[in-house]
Amino acid sequence: MTTTVNESTRNGVDTATLFATLDAVKAAPEAARFQFRARNEWLSGTHSRGTIDGFFGVGEERAHERTFHFDADHPAVLVGRDNGPTPVEYVLHALAACLTAGIANIAAARGVRLTEVRSTVTGDIDLNGILGLDPDVRNGYQNITVRFTVKGDAPAEKLREIVEQSRARSAVYDILTGQVPVAITVDAG
Amino acid sequence: MTTTVNESTRNGVDTATLFATLDAVKAAPEAARFQFRARNEWLSGTHSRGTIDGFFGVGEERAHERTFHFDADHPAVLVGRDNGPTPVEYVLHALAACLTAGIANIAAARGVRLTEVRSTVTGDIDLNGILGLDPDVRNGYQNITVRFTVKGDAPAEKLREIVEQSRARSAVYDILTGQVPVAITVDAG
Repeated sequence: MTTTVNESTRNGVDTATLFATLDAVKAAPEAARFQFRARNEWLSGTHSRGTIDGFFGVGEERAHERTFHFDADHPAVLVGRDNGPTPVEYVLHALAACLTAGIANIAAARGVRLTEVRSTVTGDIDLNGILGLDPDVRNGYQNITVRFTVKGDAPAEKLREIVEQSRARSAVYDILTGQVPVAITVDAG
Repeated sequence: MTTTVNESTRNGVDTATLFATLDAVKAAPEAARFQFRARNEWLSGTHSRGTIDGFFGVGEERAHERTFHFDADHPAVLVGRDNGPTPVEYVLHALAACLTAGIANIAAARGVRLTEVRSTVTGDIDLNGILGLDPDVRNGYQNITVRFTVKGDAPAEKLREIVEQSRARSAVYDILTGQVPVAITVDAG
């Protein structure tokens, strides 16, 4: 960092743009309607490849600066070939990334400079559920635990408040805890 | 594929191993207790990097054959630098991959050879929620739609039943629709 750095940038967040974006959405709430997408192609066994590129937002169709590809698979112990993480591990990654982005934004907005944000997310799952062996066991995680280490130029209590505000505004936290309606349609044959 | 191919392999799924795994878990249900994990390190702004390597299952600590890293970020329109997909896009990818792996396994178990499984998952989200501008708007997706194209050597109705059984046994579908308890702890300072 040099003395020429934009004074409105904190934690790598351009707070002036952040606040301008908030004002723009206040003035035109329909700009906040987004649609995100992922495509997937089955390769073999439990191995598939996901593609993420286009999305809709601020009134028009948009694209990421590059196309992202992600393989998913099961490990050998779950009769896969370990060509990628399991789908349920991607969920944990998504939760950590969402909370972390929120922490950086909220800290910046509150004038707190962060020096470190690390987390480990664990999810406990009993596969008797998805294997259909015990009807009393759910298919998904029985619980998820997120452990954050957060350091910055604010007292621990203020840092904890930032994490809590990130949780309160996290899209992925809400998706995992709020029962999103999911519809599946099939073009088969 | 040659005439020497293992006759128990269908759709790239080793069904003999799949059924043996089911029998092993029936005999020792505690083998099905898994813990998956993701670590995350904040880099700058909304950009963070996730790491997936170790997990616990079948009674012992295990590791993927290699360590997986995934960047997440926001696009410029959401005041990020687009170094990776958004966290909510990873959730869509996870759902597609989970349902697809299940389709391949279930089809194999039912003697159906698949030739194509493709899907597009879309999630509609109104950012007035996470921006805190409208208390009546949820933070997460308002709805998720999965569109599958499935082809194989079975009638369309049977292929649809396979997709439905995959949904009924999908860990990620359950996580998104079943309100997983999520706990967050913070080591701040």
